[in-house]
Amino acid sequence: MDKETLKISSLQNPRIKQGVRLRERRERDRSGLFLIEGYRELLRAIDANRKVETLFICPELFLGTNEQTLIDRIEKSGAQIFLCSEPVFHKLSYRDRPDGLLTIAPQQHLSLNDIKPSEGVSPLLVIAEAIEKPGNLGTILRSSDAVGVDALIVCDRCTDIHNPNVVRASVGTLFTVPVIEAEGKKTIEWVKEQHISILAATPHAEKEYTQVDMTGPIAIAVGTEQLGLSDLWMEHADIQVRIPMFGVADSLNVATATTLLLYEAIRQRRCI
Amino acid sequence: MDKETLKISSLQNPRIKQGVRLRERRERDRSGLFLIEGYRELLRAIDANRKVETLFICPELFLGTNEQTLIDRIEKSGAQIFLCSEPVFHKLSYRDRPDGLLTIAPQQHLSLNDIKPSEGVSPLLVIAEAIEKPGNLGTILRSSDAVGVDALIVCDRCTDIHNPNVVRASVGTLFTVPVIEAEGKKTIEWVKEQHISILAATPHAEKEYTQVDMTGPIAIAVGTEQLGLSDLWMEHADIQVRIPMFGVADSLNVATATTLLLYEAIRQRRCI
Repeated sequence: MDKETLKISSLQNPRIKQGVRLRERRERDRSGLFLIEGYRELLRAIDANRKVETLFICPELFLGTNEQTLIDRIEKSGAQIFLCSEPVFHKLSYRDRPDGLLTIAPQQHLSLNDIKPSEGVSPLLVIAEAIEKPGNLGTILRSSDAVGVDALIVCDRCTDIHNPNVVRASVGTLFTVPVIEAEGKKTIEWVKEQHISILAATPHAEKEYTQVDMTGPIAIAVGTEQLGLSDLWMEHADIQVRIPMFGVADSLNVATATTLLLYEAIRQRRCI
Repeated sequence: MDKETLKISSLQNPRIKQGVRLRERRERDRSGLFLIEGYRELLRAIDANRKVETLFICPELFLGTNEQTLIDRIEKSGAQIFLCSEPVFHKLSYRDRPDGLLTIAPQQHLSLNDIKPSEGVSPLLVIAEAIEKPGNLGTILRSSDAVGVDALIVCDRCTDIHNPNVVRASVGTLFTVPVIEAEGKKTIEWVKEQHISILAATPHAEKEYTQVDMTGPIAIAVGTEQLGLSDLWMEHADIQVRIPMFGVADSLNVATATTLLLYEAIRQRRCI
């Protein structure tokens, strides 16, 4: 570590208080900043050339051996580094088992026009409408990264994409998947202009998800945990599918359902 | 409601305190009791003939119109009913938006010998080893219910199946899927005796999960969020598969991965 690294041992330090406040959406919206915690998450952010303003470290909590290399990279990018005592880091951290790395970073916002579908293959998008739970949005991101979607569009957001639990559940794939927050109607217009079909999952569909062709350009649209997709999306859906259910429950977890649909698209595309 | 329904308006009421304590595993282990909160979860418990000792209600918080029918069923089964003030119910509830129904119920424990595979079709089991997050275990239950597994076996448990977040994430399918807690070695012995193949997902497998035959009797084994399956299970696995990944992350959420494998088994079995 650099000799100039500043030390924080007071729980009342204003930077620590700022970090704690950034757990709240209001403070994130106001400041345009957010938190990235954890080695894996930070590594993916830095690999994706994300800027970091402030890095808090607590070497007593490090779990691996590569932390210093990552810290050096972050320091070189111009971030200010603060060495925290264990009690201070525990106050700052929102994890059960913190690993001694947490940053404050500027949010990044993309728009629909930033989506650059890969050439030569049919575009594959996910549209997540009004998802409430950050953990579900993070898990959708993780699966979206896994199958290599062109973008995840978050419509009429309930949870904001910079919620610390989104970052955590996404294990840092928030930084590798292009994520766009957009209004529902504008997204539908844009998708139609791009000649991408909207595929909606609903228990009322006639066909099962394995019975429709997903090899063309498609946007898989999924809705809230409670109510599914809104009428707006159901009316504009080009393809409706259902996931067969044989038990007493009438739906799957939304992130799980999204993943099933994504991997069915991949299965079909690779079997051609 | 019956005239004899007892009212609770004190936050210090011992029954309320007991309810709050049951959020902790130690108290659940000690008492053999657990919490079931929410209309949907309770309905599924009652439909599955689960016993309930105590029902706390708060009509001001009811969201639907069928609560009274459910309350009557629970009352007839011999449970004691307590009418709570809103502040009392909020203290008792572990949800952001409580719906005015919460019970204390005796835990139920099944053993491997209680598993009765359905006849005429190949058994399909899930083995979840050392899952840490109750939300993941609950989501695995929800998907297990959806595909109609014969049982979910929780091996070498980290989270206990009566954790309130398991009940919540399972949306009550904890009461519809046979769930067994068992030690790993004994489970392997039992599975081998039953001539059921163990299918393990690992990034190192040669074959993808869509390339192996899942129509025979199989137990899908999945491991911890951090480390995957232990050596014990990998050594005894009859089939190893990987889920193809095209992004930066090297694994999916464990509940999501389990669901993909379960639905692939279903897809293959229905295509025969």
